[in-house]
Amino acid sequence: MSGQRIGVLVAVCAALGAAIILPAARLATQAAPQGPAPLANDPKLIEDLVYANRILYQQEVLDGFGHVSVRSDKDPSHFLMSRSMAPALVTSNDIMEYDRDGEPVDARGRNSYVERYIHAAIYRVRPDVKAIVHSHSPDIIPYSVTGTILLPVYHVTAFLRLGAPIFDSHDAFGDTDMLIRDNKLGDGLAKVLGNSGVALIRGHGFVAVADSTPIVVYRAIYTQLNARVQTEGMKLDKIKYLTPGEAEKAQAIVEATVGRPWELWKSQVGKIQ
Amino acid sequence: MSGQRIGVLVAVCAALGAAIILPAARLATQAAPQGPAPLANDPKLIEDLVYANRILYQQEVLDGFGHVSVRSDKDPSHFLMSRSMAPALVTSNDIMEYDRDGEPVDARGRNSYVERYIHAAIYRVRPDVKAIVHSHSPDIIPYSVTGTILLPVYHVTAFLRLGAPIFDSHDAFGDTDMLIRDNKLGDGLAKVLGNSGVALIRGHGFVAVADSTPIVVYRAIYTQLNARVQTEGMKLDKIKYLTPGEAEKAQAIVEATVGRPWELWKSQVGKIQ
Amino acid sequence: MSGQRIGVLVAVCAALGAAIILPAARLATQAAPQGPAPLANDPKLIEDLVYANRILYQQEVLDGFGHVSVRSDKDPSHFLMSRSMAPALVTSNDIMEYDRDGEPVDARGRNSYVERYIHAAIYRVRPDVKAIVHSHSPDIIPYSVTGTILLPVYHVTAFLRLGAPIFDSHDAFGDTDMLIRDNKLGDGLAKVLGNSGVALIRGHGFVAVADSTPIVVYRAIYTQLNARVQTEGMKLDKIKYLTPGEAEKAQAIVEATVGRPWELWKSQVGKIQ
Amino acid sequence: MSGQRIGVLVAVCAALGAAIILPAARLATQAAPQGPAPLANDPKLIEDLVYANRILYQQEVLDGFGHVSVRSDKDPSHFLMSRSMAPALVTSNDIMEYDRDGEPVDARGRNSYVERYIHAAIYRVRPDVKAIVHSHSPDIIPYSVTGTILLPVYHVTAFLRLGAPIFDSHDAFGDTDMLIRDNKLGDGLAKVLGNSGVALIRGHGFVAVADSTPIVVYRAIYTQLNARVQTEGMKLDKIKYLTPGEAEKAQAIVEATVGRPWELWKSQVGKIQ
Repeated sequence: MSGQRIGVLVAVCAALGAAIILPAARLATQAAPQGPAPLANDPKLIEDLVYANRILYQQEVLDGFGHVSVRSDKDPSHFLMSRSMAPALVTSNDIMEYDRDGEPVDARGRNSYVERYIHAAIYRVRPDVKAIVHSHSPDIIPYSVTGTILLPVYHVTAFLRLGAPIFDSHDAFGDTDMLIRDNKLGDGLAKVLGNSGVALIRGHGFVAVADSTPIVVYRAIYTQLNARVQTEGMKLDKIKYLTPGEAEKAQAIVEATVGRPWELWKSQVGKIQ
Repeated sequence: MSGQRIGVLVAVCAALGAAIILPAARLATQAAPQGPAPLANDPKLIEDLVYANRILYQQEVLDGFGHVSVRSDKDPSHFLMSRSMAPALVTSNDIMEYDRDGEPVDARGRNSYVERYIHAAIYRVRPDVKAIVHSHSPDIIPYSVTGTILLPVYHVTAFLRLGAPIFDSHDAFGDTDMLIRDNKLGDGLAKVLGNSGVALIRGHGFVAVADSTPIVVYRAIYTQLNARVQTEGMKLDKIKYLTPGEAEKAQAIVEATVGRPWELWKSQVGKIQ
Repeated sequence: MSGQRIGVLVAVCAALGAAIILPAARLATQAAPQGPAPLANDPKLIEDLVYANRILYQQEVLDGFGHVSVRSDKDPSHFLMSRSMAPALVTSNDIMEYDRDGEPVDARGRNSYVERYIHAAIYRVRPDVKAIVHSHSPDIIPYSVTGTILLPVYHVTAFLRLGAPIFDSHDAFGDTDMLIRDNKLGDGLAKVLGNSGVALIRGHGFVAVADSTPIVVYRAIYTQLNARVQTEGMKLDKIKYLTPGEAEKAQAIVEATVGRPWELWKSQVGKIQ
Repeated sequence: MSGQRIGVLVAVCAALGAAIILPAARLATQAAPQGPAPLANDPKLIEDLVYANRILYQQEVLDGFGHVSVRSDKDPSHFLMSRSMAPALVTSNDIMEYDRDGEPVDARGRNSYVERYIHAAIYRVRPDVKAIVHSHSPDIIPYSVTGTILLPVYHVTAFLRLGAPIFDSHDAFGDTDMLIRDNKLGDGLAKVLGNSGVALIRGHGFVAVADSTPIVVYRAIYTQLNARVQTEGMKLDKIKYLTPGEAEKAQAIVEATVGRPWELWKSQVGKIQ
């Protein structure tokens, strides 16, 4: 065998090897994230927040709009939320920290959601709340614009308890652009929310709050389901809602098993790049 | 050709071969299931039960909650059901055996569904029943909370016969957490079910029963469809339901052909790992 | 280089080649269909019939049940339809020929749809009809069980013209199993259909007819859409339907462009194995 | 090693290399588009128009029918639109130029949409309008056939302002085939549209207009959403719509952020071949 022929043979096999190995190497280097220095918070808290964004988008509670936040585990007067972008695309690199007034701690030129004051205002007055979702769900709007109270129709929505209160910016603020764009509007919403788990915002959407990320995601998804079921029920006849006693007991038991749907929803989102 | 050059050549080709062959070998070894010793039941019975879980999830009858069971072919006072987990993810390794009171025969630390008493109670009083589905279907809840009777609107839901009875835990048990969490509640539900194929559970969901897995899956899926169709029909005008004579004849004929949709649903789930 | 080493090298490269080439060869041999001798009909007629099955399933007009047929181009008193199976899985090997009474010409042990008499009866009295669809569409059932006439709400459903008549087996036949299982029932349905493009079957579904496969598929899909739109409209207020003059003109123009949606639907089904 | 054996070895490795490299090369050459000479317009304008077609199809505003156009940046009396085909399949090679009367500038045997006069007529009288969508949305038809005015139910549909006017061809033109097939009908529609962002066409669909492609796509999608929400709200109770002041402020703010959903929708369509 001549050196020339061996050279050709080695070249062909090396090319084959390159065709298989190099793309795999390139993908491996692309996986390394770039962006601002990571936050000092518990990585699990941030990972769950990213999953919450993706799950709520996949479950059609959030679309191009809407957002979800968690209270900071390092400084309880602060909270974490993605920069202003579509929830479907959020990654851990997009998470930013906000102070008690809703202003970014270290913006680095990144835009914030205009309505971050929804989150800031609620964290200020609800020490029990650790996670918040704001959604423009089309299923909820009909209730918000007709003054119809969302009540727990079945055991999985027992957290609605005595009904979801409705905040109408027009009452105290007259004609606005309907966005909760400052702390005064945020305080107005937080006041109407009171101790509830859910409040509706007339002509806008709703907010759900809870003491953990899996539970707030669960509440947002099931608030939307309750609206669909309650609407269909009201077309048939008068609805027998959960009694206050039933709602209290059922909420405790159902939210103790939130791990099961949470793990299922995470597995449906899959691995996040 | 030097030994060195040949060594390089062999190494490159071996690497290529490894890159193709080794992952395939690894997948083959991963396919071997791990877990508790398999049950002594007919493997087809277990396989159909696993498919039932997956089909009902894909057909949106079950979500993160709900369950399906079959009566044991080895001991008719026992039944088989998955451990407590999302139906979408059930495999044959998750199937457990339960005794006539709904207690696990060999738990080995695995959690059971809180509501297994629905299944235990019905198997106790309905010797004809070989399979049971419990679902929280949002389409059914409106009927359960307004006392509206589900009646057969078209031939494929003839099994609804004279209507689906509604069990309300509040009647005999007052404020509960709405779950069928013991045999007393299970007996209450089984009593209301009587000889029917379907019963609704107020503010909770429904249960479907049948003498085979394909038929109980069919009934669960079509009970949900009947609810949607009946709701739309009642918005148009007074519905002419199937007469008792039509329902009896149509049920016999339609359930004799359940193999066709069953095979289609299985093919849509595909191979289960 | 020793013969031994060369042998190892050739073996490794051959194994690599086999790992790439043999699976491709296996797929190629699997593509060759097996089954009864093909029919003598125009292959395009059969191919369109198979596509009709797949399209109607994908567009959710047919599910595990329902069927579509075409009049034979070789013998106009005969028609072609799949053997009894789910439309989602029909291939050209499944197409069978039926005579004017709806009996299979060459069954070879293959089962036929029980309701083939729907097709046989209509082909007998409607020489203009070249294709028929029978569907259990849940959107249509509400109209069939409340005696509500489906009327053309918008231009794309102009073929509904003066409304879709409703056949009720109970009128002339009393309690049946609701299936069109013989020629007497088929004749009853064909009589009610008259010269219309669509007729409803109480508590069962509907039938659509046309002079070509693309148009009958179009009519089946849009009949279902018209039902949804008409239902929503009737909830708002009194509907202004197409006038007879508008319906006549619009039908002609819309059905002249059926090639566009037909090609889109075929492309969505993709290549059929 | 004999020349024969080396030849076999080189052949096997070369075949392996070819099996990997040649398909990649073929795909690369297939990517080069063929068709008429490209238009002289801004490639970004054309690319956005193609995306608009794909997005509106994916968001279920357009199906096999409907179309979207943009005013030409080279000659403002002309506009660009795809040749007559399903929007789902439109590529940049399908875009044609039309003059102020809606006639193609350089047809080259390509068919045009019959209803291009909708676009021509509106561009003639609305110098502010740079993009137009025409859709047959089933959600809108109920409003068009009952004379129900679509009003802004929530902030994201504030562009509906004081309500969407309804054009009925029957008023001035009697029985037609319902299509806007000439400039007289187009002028009639444009007159009813007036200065609005949206007008309904009785028994046909709707038209949305805006001063950019992202905004007209946004308005088309959200007009459809508003219809669904308004319908559900009207079933619950009397709706409190956005006040004129709220609508004016909200529209400005929401349409300033249209980039976010636009980028999300483009990413969902992905790369267009």
